[in-house]
Amino acid sequence: MTSNTERQLHLNLFIMSTGHHEASWRHPDARPEAATDFQYYRDLARTAERGKMDSVFIAAKYRLANTIENRVIPQLEAITLLSALAAATERIGLTGTASTTYNEPYTLARQFASLDHISGGRAGWNIVTSTGDATAHNFSRDRHPEHQERYDQGREFVEIAKRLWDGWAEDALVIDKASGVYANRSRILPADYEGRYFSVKGPLNLPRSPQTYPVLVQAGSSEEGRQFAAELAEVIFTAQSTMANSLAFCEDMRRRLKAFGRPSESLKLLPGFVPIIGDTEQDAKRKERELNELSVSAYGLRTMSDLLQIDLSLYPIDGLVPLKDLPDISEIRGLKSRFQLLTDLARRESLTIRELIIRTAGGRGHYTFAGTPSQIADELQRWLREGAADGFNLMPPLLPGGLDDFVDKVVPELQSRGIYRTEYTGRTLREHLGLPLPTGRQMAEVAPTARP
Amino acid sequence: MTSNTERQLHLNLFIMSTGHHEASWRHPDARPEAATDFQYYRDLARTAERGKMDSVFIAAKYRLANTIENRVIPQLEAITLLSALAAATERIGLTGTASTTYNEPYTLARQFASLDHISGGRAGWNIVTSTGDATAHNFSRDRHPEHQERYDQGREFVEIAKRLWDGWAEDALVIDKASGVYANRSRILPADYEGRYFSVKGPLNLPRSPQTYPVLVQAGSSEEGRQFAAELAEVIFTAQSTMANSLAFCEDMRRRLKAFGRPSESLKLLPGFVPIIGDTEQDAKRKERELNELSVSAYGLRTMSDLLQIDLSLYPIDGLVPLKDLPDISEIRGLKSRFQLLTDLARRESLTIRELIIRTAGGRGHYTFAGTPSQIADELQRWLREGAADGFNLMPPLLPGGLDDFVDKVVPELQSRGIYRTEYTGRTLREHLGLPLPTGRQMAEVAPTARP
Repeated sequence: MTSNTERQLHLNLFIMSTGHHEASWRHPDARPEAATDFQYYRDLARTAERGKMDSVFIAAKYRLANTIENRVIPQLEAITLLSALAAATERIGLTGTASTTYNEPYTLARQFASLDHISGGRAGWNIVTSTGDATAHNFSRDRHPEHQERYDQGREFVEIAKRLWDGWAEDALVIDKASGVYANRSRILPADYEGRYFSVKGPLNLPRSPQTYPVLVQAGSSEEGRQFAAELAEVIFTAQSTMANSLAFCEDMRRRLKAFGRPSESLKLLPGFVPIIGDTEQDAKRKERELNELSVSAYGLRTMSDLLQIDLSLYPIDGLVPLKDLPDISEIRGLKSRFQLLTDLARRESLTIRELIIRTAGGRGHYTFAGTPSQIADELQRWLREGAADGFNLMPPLLPGGLDDFVDKVVPELQSRGIYRTEYTGRTLREHLGLPLPTGRQMAEVAPTARP
Repeated sequence: MTSNTERQLHLNLFIMSTGHHEASWRHPDARPEAATDFQYYRDLARTAERGKMDSVFIAAKYRLANTIENRVIPQLEAITLLSALAAATERIGLTGTASTTYNEPYTLARQFASLDHISGGRAGWNIVTSTGDATAHNFSRDRHPEHQERYDQGREFVEIAKRLWDGWAEDALVIDKASGVYANRSRILPADYEGRYFSVKGPLNLPRSPQTYPVLVQAGSSEEGRQFAAELAEVIFTAQSTMANSLAFCEDMRRRLKAFGRPSESLKLLPGFVPIIGDTEQDAKRKERELNELSVSAYGLRTMSDLLQIDLSLYPIDGLVPLKDLPDISEIRGLKSRFQLLTDLARRESLTIRELIIRTAGGRGHYTFAGTPSQIADELQRWLREGAADGFNLMPPLLPGGLDDFVDKVVPELQSRGIYRTEYTGRTLREHLGLPLPTGRQMAEVAPTARP
């Protein structure tokens, strides 16, 4: 056992129906019919809890993907699913995606505050600004706003949510049966926010929740996304294809944090990690091949065409990725950093369309590693030690098997190295992550922030 | 035992923190500090399930009431709380309020579809249009829309939600691992709705849920509310102060249903009922007095002033209700039918302000009855037999005690009379209520509707 001062790894389970490999649902062990079955998700969350993970994470889309023909898309809605999981688990964090472009701050703040109450302080919010006009068309709008505008709106949204969550002072509830005074109205502050996108009076109709705010998570790695995260996120999910890239990303984020006057521990950097676990290295490689061979080429073409915003079916699949014909990154509305990652990869390694599809089928550009439990633990430890991660957003390619293997085989390896908890020591998600309780306007003066 | 053909009573538990009496939280048995405690609500729902009730019901407000100083207002948010209850119960329905004025159809449809999946078909939606400018100010709007406009918007909202819920045909999911076809895209119809208030393309990103739609509930009894319910609701909650009033209301609703070509069984009429249960009649009356004596007069004045939209503190509390000074009902934005009920009551019985406050403190104008379990069962049976109700929206004045007493003492009385189930026979809320599965556009042609 190593010393107690060893840096500790944080693990977040990114739950996605049958797994993160696009073809996972075709695997003999997959249960695609369980994609709307609560018991299925409950069992996954309980396994992650047995593995002492910090949190489970549920993504959210606000439209039906056009790859539905060849991929399991349906997944239970994040707010409802996490609330149900709160009643079925005890300690694990419950993080969900919600958009600042297509929600109302008052309603979303109520829902996350309520989830935090219900779960005893285990809520986390992955703040996204959503992608694509197809989403806008489900919300009575003609088009999706531009990148910068979305992030500006997102900033307003988060500021309002914080003012709502922080509106009830610790001593606002009097609850004096004898005098008939339930609350001290003067200790419940309104939000009183009038912005460019939202005007919200408040206050919230729910008292302060155990964590005050849910843990604030951000998952965009574009320039605007990074700046947004440095300003106000506490956890960042990021797609990094190599340790070197992740290290550069982490160093960039630490610089940005500093410019905002925030210590580096105040933002946990969790790159995505797609583990393929075998009893031997050969076994792991075989599993990886097996999944890749299940890929449906029509699906892969459609997905890659969406990401690169060009119709790749017009090009020979064994020809080089048509880099010159791609739109400029400034024209990409949505996943800008994913676009950058894919085009960099194709350029660096001179990939054909087919090769690019296969290379990213398993983890959509996230770091994929096939090996034994010990090799995987080595790899995670190496990233942690080098400062290329504070932990990982775990994306098993196949569920539930890939999670079971991780918890049963990799977690004990991590624990024996002294870099991962053997028991939960805290009750709240903030405690699991080593994040402080927010010090809002009811507790202290708001810290001045700087735009670097 | 009576015959099996006896009409069956439906019971819905309206959960409200410490109970429906405004002063319940001051009672020695009340636990006002549990208003944000999930275990408290879980225990209430499980007790209602032990009592074989059709559903629990959670209301929702989108603002903090200004009576917070003297009353327990905080309650967990409806969507999150019902989702958590889905994981903690087996059979009971889960009905929640959500506004068509302050939500997005796509998001709300996803959340109710997800709740229906998670609970195995137990979701119900109480459709409201919300009240007051104070709500509008939490949603970036200057003022709350007028009554007619809200209901028009509500109609659009419900139509869109139905199109989203009904978009996935029964055979849309192919799930053929061998061929790699997950879904038949041509069997997933978009909503394709362009209206005056909303434009929603769809389709929903969740397959058809067990009930297709949540049970549609309506709770406004104004002219517009009644018409809305007759057109599209399946359950109506209503405040009726006497059996005669309720009978007139039910007859009116049956006439309206007929005009829409709907059979009378297609809408279940559930008046609110506030039972005060004693071992003797004297005991029940004592309990009623005990609660009324806990009322805070400042609170009662403020609540009644809000409902009548006049500042009653400017009038002598022991003087008659100043009927001549009240606004015309056409100026009331919000609870029009409650305004009507209160002014009718004050006029009919020449009540002073104090008397009106005390008369409505226990159930806000809903029918309140103090008696023994047998007397209460008699009363419920009488309303059922006379056609003044299909069942009741049960509003215990004090929780959890008032619910425990009802389940332990009144339910057996109802069961022995053969008018209430002794076991659940169905799995879904529709089955509990005897409502059919919706026949939407994917199953049959939409039935033509008429506006009478």
